[in-house]
Amino acid sequence: MALHIEKIEKSKISEVDFNNLKFGQVFTDHMFECDYENGEWQTPKIRPYQALSFDPSAKVFHYGQAVFEGMKAYKDDNDDVWLFRPDQNQERINKSAERLDMPPFPKDYFFEGLTTLIKMDSDWVQKGADNSLYIRPFVISTENCVSASSSNKYKFMIICSPVQAYYAGEVRVVFADKYSRAANGGVGYAKAAGNYAASFYPAKLAAKEGYQQVLWTDAANHEFLEEAGTMNVFFRVNDTLLTAPTSDRILDGVTRKSIIQFAEDKGIKVEVRPVRVTEIIEAAKKGELKEMFGAGTAAVISPILGFAHKGEKFELPKIDDSYASFIKKSITDIQRNKAEDKFGWRFQVK
Amino acid sequence: MALHIEKIEKSKISEVDFNNLKFGQVFTDHMFECDYENGEWQTPKIRPYQALSFDPSAKVFHYGQAVFEGMKAYKDDNDDVWLFRPDQNQERINKSAERLDMPPFPKDYFFEGLTTLIKMDSDWVQKGADNSLYIRPFVISTENCVSASSSNKYKFMIICSPVQAYYAGEVRVVFADKYSRAANGGVGYAKAAGNYAASFYPAKLAAKEGYQQVLWTDAANHEFLEEAGTMNVFFRVNDTLLTAPTSDRILDGVTRKSIIQFAEDKGIKVEVRPVRVTEIIEAAKKGELKEMFGAGTAAVISPILGFAHKGEKFELPKIDDSYASFIKKSITDIQRNKAEDKFGWRFQVK
Repeated sequence: MALHIEKIEKSKISEVDFNNLKFGQVFTDHMFECDYENGEWQTPKIRPYQALSFDPSAKVFHYGQAVFEGMKAYKDDNDDVWLFRPDQNQERINKSAERLDMPPFPKDYFFEGLTTLIKMDSDWVQKGADNSLYIRPFVISTENCVSASSSNKYKFMIICSPVQAYYAGEVRVVFADKYSRAANGGVGYAKAAGNYAASFYPAKLAAKEGYQQVLWTDAANHEFLEEAGTMNVFFRVNDTLLTAPTSDRILDGVTRKSIIQFAEDKGIKVEVRPVRVTEIIEAAKKGELKEMFGAGTAAVISPILGFAHKGEKFELPKIDDSYASFIKKSITDIQRNKAEDKFGWRFQVK
Repeated sequence: MALHIEKIEKSKISEVDFNNLKFGQVFTDHMFECDYENGEWQTPKIRPYQALSFDPSAKVFHYGQAVFEGMKAYKDDNDDVWLFRPDQNQERINKSAERLDMPPFPKDYFFEGLTTLIKMDSDWVQKGADNSLYIRPFVISTENCVSASSSNKYKFMIICSPVQAYYAGEVRVVFADKYSRAANGGVGYAKAAGNYAASFYPAKLAAKEGYQQVLWTDAANHEFLEEAGTMNVFFRVNDTLLTAPTSDRILDGVTRKSIIQFAEDKGIKVEVRPVRVTEIIEAAKKGELKEMFGAGTAAVISPILGFAHKGEKFELPKIDDSYASFIKKSITDIQRNKAEDKFGWRFQVK
């Protein structure tokens, strides 16, 4: 495949304070870009990171036809750069795109663009346990027309942002009992732009009550626990891990599936099944709810310290043998080439 | 209020063939624009219609935090220009914005921007029963950051596109029994960008089966009929009009509420209540389902000639005393200053 490359004249990396990064606000020297026109993806290109020109009528501004992915690259002590299961992100962005009636992006374009871009900007992948490069592939609809129908033009891009360890502070959640994130037959399983916008207002209301995230329940009856904020969610009841099955409401998270596989391999019992609000409350009351945590690319695992449901508050116990800590360290070590990769999850950028 | 105005040097109107317009692809000479920064809306401006520069990390591209409105302006035989209930659109865009955690746009900015823009581009509002100016106010999130949270910067815009009579061809619909548009606790009632993207794929599947629109049902059980494509929907059973009540799943359509008020004033019985799939099928089988139609700004009323439900097909009868035709003509005459405006719906741009 042809890949047009235009390099920056001078890197802006010296202007960046890598010890004071705000998540997702600083971008590397280059970006990957490919336009879809006349029914096909055109020649992809890598060029200096820059603002682009859009007509005010571009469909993405009006109809939210846009999907994205989140990935991370890590640099080990030998200066080798690693990705974590990028095939999963490549497949998922096309599943998301299909649901929003957008064309799939070719796998070879995705990998050639991704690896070439990371190699060109590899100085931006900083070493050290706290550092990584957050990678954002995304697709937006770019036809200039305010008619509410699928676009005939799209733009696929990859932009990269150096980030430090993700720490959300102490996280407590409120179980959703009014607002919803996703419905049967909807787009909840897709990384569709509009899913995120829809969650901001309920999240703000939760924050006003002192909760950092909403624990989303099924839209129909608020009976089942489905996702935490923008992450999948796990519950440890006694020594069993519970998490909801993927569905058209629930994202097929890469971290989620890696946790399930890793935990099962370690002999931890995992039940992938609908998780009832009532059973978690009952387990909490009995002292059997040992842990709750969110799972996603940004934080890998984000422990949840407590929750509220219809005004009733629950605090989880402090425990020594935390599954969350153990699994997070183990997966992080695999990601950063500090542990054996028995599942074949690592992907070297070379 | 201050409104900064920069006029075009030369109008592009002479390049436009007003007899061959595709919906929403041609725009007038100017656009209205106002940025939200540092917690407040800045000085609004009208300037030549043009593409704008956006960073690839602008939140609107990633999280779909965007809302819009649709309005129309009409020119009567005296060259006076009229809007239809613009107060409703002004209120609704702020309701939509609130649900997506976006700041409200001040009413005086909205009206000053809207009317000044239309006056400047009034040559683009063509006379004649088939012509109007479609007006698209919208708000997008413009902070440059790929963190999944509300933006701290926004852009409110109004762009205008001359359009001809909206004719969608013969419309038959399929009742949704798998996909869904909106759920309780979701954003279905808002004109949120992501709602539209989510409907494109089910609409494509319907089109493959020969249906021009999806008639959306409730996400929980697909028991109730809620919206038709991007429009509200009405059913005439015998001589009674039925339409679903507004809710967090259903848009509070300006055309919808105008039809209800107009019909009731004319002595037509209107029932605003949940409409069951089963009752409409039963009515169709008994020959009591006389009409179905969509209601929205673009078409005012769009008759639906038939429908399918789980493979079963129904064709509506041809009738002489169509409510749809009567109401459409009556409301259109009010909009175009050809009939008395007893409800105070018209708004002159002067």
